[in-house]
Amino acid sequence: MLGVDIVKVSRIKKVYEKFNEKFLFKIFNDEEILYIKGKNYNIETISGLYAAKEAVSKSMKTGISKLSFKDIKIYHKNNAPYAIVFDNVFDLSISHEREYAIAVSNFREKLNDSEFKFLNKRNKNAHKGDFGKVAIIAGKKGMTGSAYLSSNAAMRTGSGLVYNIVPEDIMDIMSIKYIEVIAKSFDNLNNMNDFLEKMDSIAIGPGMGLSSNEEKILDSVLKINKNIVIDADGITNLSKNMKLLEKRKPYTTILTPHNSEFSRLYGYSIDEIQINRIKLAKSFALKYKCVLLLKGNNTVVTDGKRVYINRSGNPGMATAGSGDVLTGIIASLLGQNIDIFNATCYGSYLHGRAGDLAKEAVGEEALIASDIIRNIYKAVSECIKDEFETT
Amino acid sequence: MLGVDIVKVSRIKKVYEKFNEKFLFKIFNDEEILYIKGKNYNIETISGLYAAKEAVSKSMKTGISKLSFKDIKIYHKNNAPYAIVFDNVFDLSISHEREYAIAVSNFREKLNDSEFKFLNKRNKNAHKGDFGKVAIIAGKKGMTGSAYLSSNAAMRTGSGLVYNIVPEDIMDIMSIKYIEVIAKSFDNLNNMNDFLEKMDSIAIGPGMGLSSNEEKILDSVLKINKNIVIDADGITNLSKNMKLLEKRKPYTTILTPHNSEFSRLYGYSIDEIQINRIKLAKSFALKYKCVLLLKGNNTVVTDGKRVYINRSGNPGMATAGSGDVLTGIIASLLGQNIDIFNATCYGSYLHGRAGDLAKEAVGEEALIASDIIRNIYKAVSECIKDEFETT
Amino acid sequence: MLGVDIVKVSRIKKVYEKFNEKFLFKIFNDEEILYIKGKNYNIETISGLYAAKEAVSKSMKTGISKLSFKDIKIYHKNNAPYAIVFDNVFDLSISHEREYAIAVSNFREKLNDSEFKFLNKRNKNAHKGDFGKVAIIAGKKGMTGSAYLSSNAAMRTGSGLVYNIVPEDIMDIMSIKYIEVIAKSFDNLNNMNDFLEKMDSIAIGPGMGLSSNEEKILDSVLKINKNIVIDADGITNLSKNMKLLEKRKPYTTILTPHNSEFSRLYGYSIDEIQINRIKLAKSFALKYKCVLLLKGNNTVVTDGKRVYINRSGNPGMATAGSGDVLTGIIASLLGQNIDIFNATCYGSYLHGRAGDLAKEAVGEEALIASDIIRNIYKAVSECIKDEFETT
Amino acid sequence: MLGVDIVKVSRIKKVYEKFNEKFLFKIFNDEEILYIKGKNYNIETISGLYAAKEAVSKSMKTGISKLSFKDIKIYHKNNAPYAIVFDNVFDLSISHEREYAIAVSNFREKLNDSEFKFLNKRNKNAHKGDFGKVAIIAGKKGMTGSAYLSSNAAMRTGSGLVYNIVPEDIMDIMSIKYIEVIAKSFDNLNNMNDFLEKMDSIAIGPGMGLSSNEEKILDSVLKINKNIVIDADGITNLSKNMKLLEKRKPYTTILTPHNSEFSRLYGYSIDEIQINRIKLAKSFALKYKCVLLLKGNNTVVTDGKRVYINRSGNPGMATAGSGDVLTGIIASLLGQNIDIFNATCYGSYLHGRAGDLAKEAVGEEALIASDIIRNIYKAVSECIKDEFETT
Repeated sequence: MLGVDIVKVSRIKKVYEKFNEKFLFKIFNDEEILYIKGKNYNIETISGLYAAKEAVSKSMKTGISKLSFKDIKIYHKNNAPYAIVFDNVFDLSISHEREYAIAVSNFREKLNDSEFKFLNKRNKNAHKGDFGKVAIIAGKKGMTGSAYLSSNAAMRTGSGLVYNIVPEDIMDIMSIKYIEVIAKSFDNLNNMNDFLEKMDSIAIGPGMGLSSNEEKILDSVLKINKNIVIDADGITNLSKNMKLLEKRKPYTTILTPHNSEFSRLYGYSIDEIQINRIKLAKSFALKYKCVLLLKGNNTVVTDGKRVYINRSGNPGMATAGSGDVLTGIIASLLGQNIDIFNATCYGSYLHGRAGDLAKEAVGEEALIASDIIRNIYKAVSECIKDEFETT
Repeated sequence: MLGVDIVKVSRIKKVYEKFNEKFLFKIFNDEEILYIKGKNYNIETISGLYAAKEAVSKSMKTGISKLSFKDIKIYHKNNAPYAIVFDNVFDLSISHEREYAIAVSNFREKLNDSEFKFLNKRNKNAHKGDFGKVAIIAGKKGMTGSAYLSSNAAMRTGSGLVYNIVPEDIMDIMSIKYIEVIAKSFDNLNNMNDFLEKMDSIAIGPGMGLSSNEEKILDSVLKINKNIVIDADGITNLSKNMKLLEKRKPYTTILTPHNSEFSRLYGYSIDEIQINRIKLAKSFALKYKCVLLLKGNNTVVTDGKRVYINRSGNPGMATAGSGDVLTGIIASLLGQNIDIFNATCYGSYLHGRAGDLAKEAVGEEALIASDIIRNIYKAVSECIKDEFETT
Repeated sequence: MLGVDIVKVSRIKKVYEKFNEKFLFKIFNDEEILYIKGKNYNIETISGLYAAKEAVSKSMKTGISKLSFKDIKIYHKNNAPYAIVFDNVFDLSISHEREYAIAVSNFREKLNDSEFKFLNKRNKNAHKGDFGKVAIIAGKKGMTGSAYLSSNAAMRTGSGLVYNIVPEDIMDIMSIKYIEVIAKSFDNLNNMNDFLEKMDSIAIGPGMGLSSNEEKILDSVLKINKNIVIDADGITNLSKNMKLLEKRKPYTTILTPHNSEFSRLYGYSIDEIQINRIKLAKSFALKYKCVLLLKGNNTVVTDGKRVYINRSGNPGMATAGSGDVLTGIIASLLGQNIDIFNATCYGSYLHGRAGDLAKEAVGEEALIASDIIRNIYKAVSECIKDEFETT
Repeated sequence: MLGVDIVKVSRIKKVYEKFNEKFLFKIFNDEEILYIKGKNYNIETISGLYAAKEAVSKSMKTGISKLSFKDIKIYHKNNAPYAIVFDNVFDLSISHEREYAIAVSNFREKLNDSEFKFLNKRNKNAHKGDFGKVAIIAGKKGMTGSAYLSSNAAMRTGSGLVYNIVPEDIMDIMSIKYIEVIAKSFDNLNNMNDFLEKMDSIAIGPGMGLSSNEEKILDSVLKINKNIVIDADGITNLSKNMKLLEKRKPYTTILTPHNSEFSRLYGYSIDEIQINRIKLAKSFALKYKCVLLLKGNNTVVTDGKRVYINRSGNPGMATAGSGDVLTGIIASLLGQNIDIFNATCYGSYLHGRAGDLAKEAVGEEALIASDIIRNIYKAVSECIKDEFETT
């Protein structure tokens, strides 16, 4: 929204001559007073900044009455003024001629308030191998959407290569669906494991099914000594034989259950879990030496010692396939050389943040899982480390 | 469109001193006069508001000559002024210095004049089960588009999970088409009914075909004691055996015929129906204890007692697949715990409103059914209940 | 682009008092002088209009030096001023206070200079049958894209129902590709013709193939006494047996060859055709009593008597599938109750116009056929008849 | 960003009368002084230009402190002023009335600084044959995405017709994926070569596989005396039998290896290649009389004599399928009558530039190969030769 203000310099002059510092302290912040001092207390500068604050106050859509002059903070970057009010940034243009000072302001953007800045700007000499090879074992006849969502989410989160390992009978379906992701199937588990050994991270579970055949696949995959994310049907299959988890190297496994899947894994009732989310999540992670991500409003991530509670996300994400997207995001981060606990925290945050951006685009009610994928790129951009500090 | 106005305060002063209240009553509305009073009849305030009205009048693209000063209503929200003229909202910025008052106005948006506000903001702790599991029995070899449109419309209207029940021979085709929707087929009707029992709502009909096999499916599905929408081929199949409808629990069935389908159902000629739309719709709904939605310009929704006439929508929606989208929308609302009569009214309104938004985007002539789905999210957003009243 | 101007009223006053009518005639057009007269030669009005012209001249990106004051035409619609310069429309806002007149102008849009306005606004009570059922016989194994492009172009041009008649072996492929269009195949030609008899228009040819089987299909289809568009492989098949055309009812057939296809049809060499495009097109159309659309820069449409030369379009449309889109557009118009000669002229224009809009979006070099379809909706909107005249 | 400035003409007058030329030389560039001279050193003109420079300086987001008055260059095109500061273009509007001069400026665009301008504006009479028929031999069961990316990239780069030659068993998959591109398969190599002889350019390799069957295909294709691009699996197959390359006509082959593929081709270790990129690339190209494009940061293109180092592109392009897009772009340019060395340089530049535009849209981290294709049209537009010089 535009704001405009015109101020007669002589009026400000009178007030300033009468109240002096008192006037300055009432209207301006310390940094602004320093700036005015640098301009030798020039009355035109003071009038211009005053007009700028008035203009910005008109640009704010809400809450002006609750706004004091000092809430509007005027900065200069390379001599160009701009204003920040809470997390809103405004462009400013100020002009003064002896008699009048005028200022125009315009809303520029919301401050990027990303909780994490964990991604390095990419190195000039990078090649796709540097960003990880990810294999996602997901999908079966009749459940091809979840595999699609997981794999494309991983691709969008920055992986160099994403393979979706599928049963032979959906190879053609998946090949039709994919562009960048590569669908792959194997005629025996040994060949599959040989391939998986070359990966940087592995995810298993979304839409994979619950038959004895899929239990065997899980059994085989969990023998691989690599970081693995287990989700959805993978969790249900695991719950039938927790020894598979016990045998794994400590802290190489991420589990991402919702409450009822967690109940299956740990034996507690859903009600018990609901009232002891953090405590039970911690004790499980400690017992099985894994990273546990327990879904829900305020998702819990824990390795048994550290606990991270994720605040991003919204109830519009309670929609088919949303969890599959999360699995793909975490698998991608895991393959980008981020340690297992952080990859889970960051992934949880990114997923929620992409969902919040999707909500801005389509609203909460209509939000579908593809919308989350479509917004991963923005969420990811916010998490790139700044190269140098801004003033 | 931008509007700008500059007013010399002394000129307003003269007029005001001469005519006093008369001047105020001619130019300003009661609320504005209250505002002026609150400012102690300050002449700058009066001049600023006067300039604002002139600026807004310049921002209106049409109808200025038919516009009186009082049609332009200036409000303040947290001290920030804005104007409403009929259903147009304008941003305003006003500035005054003793000699001059200036005002800039800019069109912001059309008022959201949604007929219904029936959707609650989602609860923080919601999970996808809260928004309904919907099954849509639709599609056959050669008629896969209608199933696709119904199912995705349900997904976009906010359902947590949408299943499209299809014959085995199009399972792969539908799996390729879908991302979030899950295609499912059954080898016998008992298994299908076991699955449907777990659903929150059911729709049957779009592109399902008219053979004896599909009649048997309808027969079987209508034995389920749940809210069911019957459309398209489902209606034609039903018309061969109206006893299926008579046996159902009262007010658990929605029928969505157009005139010729209604003729098949009720035996009246299309001409008779055309001139007695409301009367025949009511008597049918009363006789069969169902909710009837009779399509056409001014769609009629009735349960035999209550009648709702829908005014949203446009003739660009007379295009292949438009009705399939309606079926999906109603099934979705039905699965979100909205009662059967209201779900049909709201669904009819939402469908037309999404079509009106699609018309804004691509025009009436070129509009296709996918455009309606692409605009459901906006129509849905307009129907969320306000959390608190705006001034 | 923004333009702004400030004018001191007293300066204009001096000039006006000195030169009087001479000044007005030099600066203003007749309509503007009438407007000024209506305002009683008020000097503020004159100054405001003067400032407006200066502001508009600054808004023009090019050609100001070649611009006279009279090229800038200021109109009022419901008292709101706007300006037209050649085919550019500018929003205007003018304000005057005794001492100064200021004006702001902003480019609004290019005038819609559609060559044809042939589409009526749709009737409120319309249903999809009113906009035509179109069958497009197109596509074979390995040539599915052309069928897709033709059929979707017809859908976007406003047809109520579009069927793509295909060989059985690509039914699944086409079902996967389509959403609104319905793919259909027939086991024998009699059944196909029974179905085609119910259509409002028929097109045949794109990607249909050149084997004896397809010749038989053409033979059979041309026996149907309906308006038919023949394109691409359909033309080549026809050229082997021109009697099929001779037997048809006069003026129920449209042929859309490019030069080499026309050479095959008519026996003249491509060089002869290139230098006698109009003459040969006319004589062919007269001989075979059909409408001929001869493609190329400046496409010729003729029924042997009337000739229409199409000027829309650009060389970026020289890309795979562009002709298929044209076939679909013409078939759609033909099914909307537009007579056969006009449907071909309008179709040719619409196709070129959609291509010009696509060029604005992606440039000439990169333009592909889907871009043309994506822009049909805009081209179609421009061809809707105005409901009332604008001032 | 907006900038605004107001200047009192009398103030500028005083300064100008005091310092005269010195003032002009300090503030204005030679061209601007010429303009002022043409206006007879009118003080309003000088004030207006001064205000314009102040306004522009406020429009610059960064670096104002490092900006001198002379860095802001004001031009007039048809009397309309605009400003260029480094590679930023600003719209300007200037107004002066004896007492005051005001100026508004607004950022318009970045200057198109395309490294190459090699594409002619298309001729009005062009037909799709003029822009080349391209065949891309790519893809196999399980590797359909790379074929898709190569072929669509060629289509978007402006080819008239693009054929993707594939094994029979993925014909249906590719037909479903494509709209404009035509998938084609052959039952024997002779038929394939007969077809390829009619092409304007050929590419071979992406996702084609490494079995003996594919070696035979390469062997057969390389016998065709046309310009051919060899990439990916095509390179690996070639490396097993370099004689195939030796037998080809000099300078009809482009190879596009990354370092490890180049190692396979030339026998040097990857480390040796990394430190001698240019030298080894030149010697290889000279030895085999081909054009070599050695991928990496600062891609090297050489024919053994000439060397081009490409600077466009970014590390976000280190993602699956990025190289396939490059192959399609080069094949397309090659088919548009651009000589083999230039087609490789231009293609390398265009690919990087499209990737840079994709980065602007989605960021570096999330960038996927489809994003590059989506931005080819912009990169291509920048490379169209200007019709006439701009001032």
